Amino acid sequence: MKIGVLGTGMVGVAIATKLAELGHELTMGARQAGNEKAVAWASEAGENAGEGSFADACLDAELVFNCTAGMFSLEALRAAGADNLSGKVLVDVANPLDFSQGMPPTLSACNTDSLGEQVQREFPDARVVKALNTVNASVMTDPGSVPGDHVVFVCGDDDLAKQRVIGLLGEIGWPADRVVDLGDISAARGTEMYMPLWLRMMSSLGTPQFNIALAR
Amino acid sequence: MKIGVLGTGMVGVAIATKLAELGHELTMGARQAGNEKAVAWASEAGENAGEGSFADACLDAELVFNCTAGMFSLEALRAAGADNLSGKVLVDVANPLDFSQGMPPTLSACNTDSLGEQVQREFPDARVVKALNTVNASVMTDPGSVPGDHVVFVCGDDDLAKQRVIGLLGEIGWPADRVVDLGDISAARGTEMYMPLWLRMMSSLGTPQFNIALAR
Repeated sequence: MKIGVLGTGMVGVAIATKLAELGHELTMGARQAGNEKAVAWASEAGENAGEGSFADACLDAELVFNCTAGMFSLEALRAAGADNLSGKVLVDVANPLDFSQGMPPTLSACNTDSLGEQVQREFPDARVVKALNTVNASVMTDPGSVPGDHVVFVCGDDDLAKQRVIGLLGEIGWPADRVVDLGDISAARGTEMYMPLWLRMMSSLGTPQFNIALAR
Repeated sequence: MKIGVLGTGMVGVAIATKLAELGHELTMGARQAGNEKAVAWASEAGENAGEGSFADACLDAELVFNCTAGMFSLEALRAAGADNLSGKVLVDVANPLDFSQGMPPTLSACNTDSLGEQVQREFPDARVVKALNTVNASVMTDPGSVPGDHVVFVCGDDDLAKQRVIGLLGEIGWPADRVVDLGDISAARGTEMYMPLWLRMMSSLGTPQFNIALAR
């Protein structure tokens, strides 16, 4: 599948690397084509990896991952262009963490809104699926690195889009019975507002290499 | 131990019943002494169970559980009286869920504040420990009703107070290795902001009878 990954940070690199390894055709998008990190990544990631602007990464993609920093995601998606996102599955991995006031970060949207909903509202023709934003980059793309049947969440308004994302998660190593469908995109409030608990658990455990499992 | 439980709802009844069964001396507090539910509870719960006003419940207690609805907790604690809370361990089980705008509820404090912090700020001489607010009443007092090594959280500024609460949680059925200490009271933001995710998981799973375990 042709996949665009927006963002050149740890999450973007981890997702793009994993998907390229799985044989997908990847374009890593940045503010401008020729971004140093994206060029370095593409040159290492093999023949099915390229780079370009945010718009370049979305142009021919069937599916797009938003791995930009949450505070800049809407700006990045605007640069990608609504037309380039129209009809496409847009996997929103970002958390709207605002570090501008120091630690701990706050959320720029929460309680009555979420980044996932903001993205869906501003790009109504994109098929937004919030996913993978509850684990760090290495757990995300290597779930086996943490033992046990820990889970990730998906939510979104488009059931077929969710099914495609669940399929792709299966390729990455998240079997369907470890993907919890929380319903429509407003559930992004739940997974984004989990961040403050995640951050405190990380401090207590002394590692970001953990996740939650459901006991029932 | 002499324990006051503020609140006559499901959580208050569950906590008070469990602690009375364990042999503690319980007083259930309500807005006014003679509250119908509190009287009914006390008459069923045996010799070491009584009832009274919020202030009555705190007066001789060594430890107080706030099991009132989060939106009314500060008012209830004011009625209990700062003097009656001074120096005492105050276990805050409430979530600041605001149902006034319908479903889903929002949080009346979040992101840059929490109910736990509000309580500690308004009652600086109480030794506030946020605990047990991430599970429903039946899981809270009967952790064995859900299989697996699922966890609960504590946080608070007073380490000795936390140790006492962790001890009491052990009596209830939460061994210390399943109680995650998240640090100071500001971590209450984390456990309270987990509510939207908890509510969506409850919808997806079709039951409130679940919890999360840590995988690491």
